[in-house]
Amino acid sequence: MDYFEASLSRHRETRGKIEVRSRMRLDSVDDLSLAYTPGVARPCEEIANNPAAAWDLTWKGRAVAVVSDGSAVLGLGNLGGLASLPVMEGKAALFREFGGVDAVPVVLATQDEDEIIQTVRSIAPTFGGINLEDISAPRCFRIEAALQDLGIPVLHDDQHGTAIVLLAALINASRITGVSLPNLSVVINGAGAAGHAIARMLCCQDDDDRCIPVGKVRICDSKGIIAPSRAGLNDYKQELARWTNPEDEQGDLRDALRGAHAFIGVSKGNLLNGDDIRRMAKDPIVLAMANPTPEIMPDEAEAAGARIIGTGRSDFANQVNNVLAFPGLFRGALAARAVKFTAAMKFAAVEAIAAAAGEPSPKRILPAAFDRSVAVSVADRVAEAARQSGACL
Amino acid sequence: MDYFEASLSRHRETRGKIEVRSRMRLDSVDDLSLAYTPGVARPCEEIANNPAAAWDLTWKGRAVAVVSDGSAVLGLGNLGGLASLPVMEGKAALFREFGGVDAVPVVLATQDEDEIIQTVRSIAPTFGGINLEDISAPRCFRIEAALQDLGIPVLHDDQHGTAIVLLAALINASRITGVSLPNLSVVINGAGAAGHAIARMLCCQDDDDRCIPVGKVRICDSKGIIAPSRAGLNDYKQELARWTNPEDEQGDLRDALRGAHAFIGVSKGNLLNGDDIRRMAKDPIVLAMANPTPEIMPDEAEAAGARIIGTGRSDFANQVNNVLAFPGLFRGALAARAVKFTAAMKFAAVEAIAAAAGEPSPKRILPAAFDRSVAVSVADRVAEAARQSGACL
Repeated sequence: MDYFEASLSRHRETRGKIEVRSRMRLDSVDDLSLAYTPGVARPCEEIANNPAAAWDLTWKGRAVAVVSDGSAVLGLGNLGGLASLPVMEGKAALFREFGGVDAVPVVLATQDEDEIIQTVRSIAPTFGGINLEDISAPRCFRIEAALQDLGIPVLHDDQHGTAIVLLAALINASRITGVSLPNLSVVINGAGAAGHAIARMLCCQDDDDRCIPVGKVRICDSKGIIAPSRAGLNDYKQELARWTNPEDEQGDLRDALRGAHAFIGVSKGNLLNGDDIRRMAKDPIVLAMANPTPEIMPDEAEAAGARIIGTGRSDFANQVNNVLAFPGLFRGALAARAVKFTAAMKFAAVEAIAAAAGEPSPKRILPAAFDRSVAVSVADRVAEAARQSGACL
Repeated sequence: MDYFEASLSRHRETRGKIEVRSRMRLDSVDDLSLAYTPGVARPCEEIANNPAAAWDLTWKGRAVAVVSDGSAVLGLGNLGGLASLPVMEGKAALFREFGGVDAVPVVLATQDEDEIIQTVRSIAPTFGGINLEDISAPRCFRIEAALQDLGIPVLHDDQHGTAIVLLAALINASRITGVSLPNLSVVINGAGAAGHAIARMLCCQDDDDRCIPVGKVRICDSKGIIAPSRAGLNDYKQELARWTNPEDEQGDLRDALRGAHAFIGVSKGNLLNGDDIRRMAKDPIVLAMANPTPEIMPDEAEAAGARIIGTGRSDFANQVNNVLAFPGLFRGALAARAVKFTAAMKFAAVEAIAAAAGEPSPKRILPAAFDRSVAVSVADRVAEAARQSGACL
């Protein structure tokens, strides 16, 4: 099937992917008087007296905004807010179908960081959570950080959703290869939103007891290994250098790959070949998530000796897909009335996803993307972690 | 029934009034690949190349934001954005049920005019229309005016929705009493959002061929008749003085009522008594829309000789309710892909609502609020007017 043209016609048929329904009947004077005036005055007053009542009396406790400025849409680049709407609607549909969450897209006319922050702050009372999406790095880091005091969980999914699913995949892969996380040497290629969040998790930069630091992490961008002494690094890359490379190792991607146990690609298609895989340790793990074309195609990686191969694509084994994380993450956060996402909640999601794969095998280090039971397990574990952390209403 | 307590329990049962549904199936790899990645890239590119395609390929052409800062919630005053959420959700439910429009509440954390304008501008690409709601006067005038260049219709319903339904009621009432609009003397009490918009329409201040100016209009606030020479009027009241009272008539509400054919109340409960009605011309029209308590109760007005009586309440005859206007207004505007609401579109709505009452009688100058056929007629006429005006995509 040509997914691209078929998708275009399907979107034209349905005019988008989500719709709004009423949960109350509105067939009589009595119905109108309860759902709207005059009766609705009472729930309004109740919330004015006790803001937390909004979670009981409105959609707030079920509702998430999927916010994007369209600055980094899929692999397509900066298309702007309007053109990102099909992605955000798709995300809203996935939230509903997989997480039972009522999500709506909010695509923006601005790409100014301060205006984005201000806009999200302004609309926040409407929602119980904010999913930031397809906002380019490094802007996304400051935007997400500036919104952590909103009193509702705010998460940039391209960072943490990806990192959570990736870490679940890596944990299961390392169980198969027998090299435990503390002994694992990992190369991340791509220092954007996902690469940054992955490095953060692998290096246990957030305060959480359950985090096991990976033995060695190197992260590369298009100029090679990110190292403290490298010139011209922005603040976020300097941070990466400190987390991953205190030894100040210099070199290019190929240097980094020498002897590594795992390659994590969040970069561009066709960057690696069989020789690069052979440069790695024996039985390497290759998670090549560039979309739609992976950093190396699975058949080539396998021929060169890769033991476990994952991509972002649904037509190969081991699809690393955010849909395994975000519906359950938000569902769990909403259920616990979490005021933010903590490191413990993210690790709970990692563990739930890793467990949902069952006994891992080289062709199954993750559950299937459309397995709806995953979001339920993730939500349960995330909610439990939220309650234990006390970061709840 | 105690609508207030019953409403509170119903809201608690349903946790609010709206929910989001997916319009595409998401049960297989193929489904995911069409609704989301990789296929969704194609509709995104299509919109990037041709922004108007968003109306065909996303929910934009069906979607309205109901935006409020909660500064004037029903008759309850300034409760803030969060506490206004039950009203905005109710409105969204009415949009769905009566207009087939996919509306979502957007309640704001700010009451600063510039921040409200900026927020609405920022989120506008997401929607095909913006319904401003429960924003206090005179702030609402500047906010609405500043958003007319967005390229989608923006309407403050407390102004224009109310004015449209009121004018339909007045037209039908004047047919019964036999005093035509050019001969009619009208007193408006209340110079807030609704009063301003009503005066604007009755005085034909917007450029439209079909508008018939009412013979005499006086508008009062709590200090009496608004007149050009009165001290301390803000810009909006000076505008009202110019529109309605070039003769610079001074006095209080009682002075204004002397000999008037119609009273339009958009003020507070219990302001008038039988003597006030007897001060008016014979067989007067009394549209006392303060909620929940009208400016005068229907039985008292009737005993004092009022021929036709309407209120904002569902438990009396002639309910003047915005739900007769806004679902059809937006449905029609969306169908025509209107870039704004023109005076012609508003008058088309007036005519459709007036016609939907059938042959008017004193107890039926408007169709019933829950008559779903009204929105369809309104939408058809509004869309036709939009197309004729050329203010469409």
